Amino acid sequence: MHHQRKTHVDNNIAAVELAKAYRLLNHGPTVLVSARSQGIDNVMAAAWCCALDFAPPKLTVVLDKMTKTREFIEQSGMFVIQVPTVAQLQLTHRVGSQSLADDANKLLNCGVELFEMAGHDLPFVAGCSAWLACKLIPEPNNQLQYDLFIAEVIGAWADTQVFNHGHWHFDTAPADKRSLHYIAGGQFYAIGESFNAD
Amino acid sequence: MHHQRKTHVDNNIAAVELAKAYRLLNHGPTVLVSARSQGIDNVMAAAWCCALDFAPPKLTVVLDKMTKTREFIEQSGMFVIQVPTVAQLQLTHRVGSQSLADDANKLLNCGVELFEMAGHDLPFVAGCSAWLACKLIPEPNNQLQYDLFIAEVIGAWADTQVFNHGHWHFDTAPADKRSLHYIAGGQFYAIGESFNAD
Repeated sequence: MHHQRKTHVDNNIAAVELAKAYRLLNHGPTVLVSARSQGIDNVMAAAWCCALDFAPPKLTVVLDKMTKTREFIEQSGMFVIQVPTVAQLQLTHRVGSQSLADDANKLLNCGVELFEMAGHDLPFVAGCSAWLACKLIPEPNNQLQYDLFIAEVIGAWADTQVFNHGHWHFDTAPADKRSLHYIAGGQFYAIGESFNAD
Repeated sequence: MHHQRKTHVDNNIAAVELAKAYRLLNHGPTVLVSARSQGIDNVMAAAWCCALDFAPPKLTVVLDKMTKTREFIEQSGMFVIQVPTVAQLQLTHRVGSQSLADDANKLLNCGVELFEMAGHDLPFVAGCSAWLACKLIPEPNNQLQYDLFIAEVIGAWADTQVFNHGHWHFDTAPADKRSLHYIAGGQFYAIGESFNAD
């Protein structure tokens, strides 16, 4: 799967302070889950991913037993959670509907471009708005009984056009950088307007 | 806390098929968690609530050890997850910032009106767009180590103005019925525009 991977230099990507990494997921976006095992990369979509703790930051993600990505995560103990954008609507739906088990060229056929982040042997999906590098905290009972995986977030980055100074700026960023929130049957909502409570 | 509770008849509320209950949470809204113990009701806000399974429907919710709502859930084994609306922005932020431990009149002071749902000895928050009655699946290790609670959804209802025939209709319903998605510091996003992937 290395043919579609390239070293990607994107000046819009900046590290996010780990204590604020939960904010990348706090609004409940549908995410892409990527993992690498034995030189093979895979990416799937997951609507069931949620922050779990602030410091150190942790998250949960539900991974069906049928998915190759889960297999890779069980093998490597590492994965990336990333926040796809409205511009990636079709890509997100495709990687969530197709399996690497059926199509060795899944990523290419879904239009996924991967890039590397220094210091992490993990596949990062280009074009997303945020990335969280995760280290599995093995909890065999949760994994077997509920398909529920717990991980610590060990690195976080965001596209500074849409997330900077610890906050999302969906109202001022380009509209196609809004996060996606899946319902069912190919229907997603984009995140909308900002409101401040007193 | 019974003075603010009343039997509420709202013709807009209809049961949601349990197999489609996950759709009420799939887009990652911030929720209100309510519980009753020994005749006392409480309501808190939670950004970290997530679907876990389809059938029977299950969900996860993270409940800090400091909260009275968690105490009530540990005592009763039952709770309600409900989806608040833009119209409930201040209410949602207030029940998430104040504790019943400090103010016995928290619910009244936060503007919470409760109602009853036949067959369920639980407090339901009026004005929300969806409600899920939940039965705790005790997992002591998750609860103690991660503040993570797993429950089965045993009843689901929605405001038919904004959720019907198994789908949200945020684009056509009144704008103040959109769901809220919390970030931090009192800032929320409303859910936005609908998109369909091929």
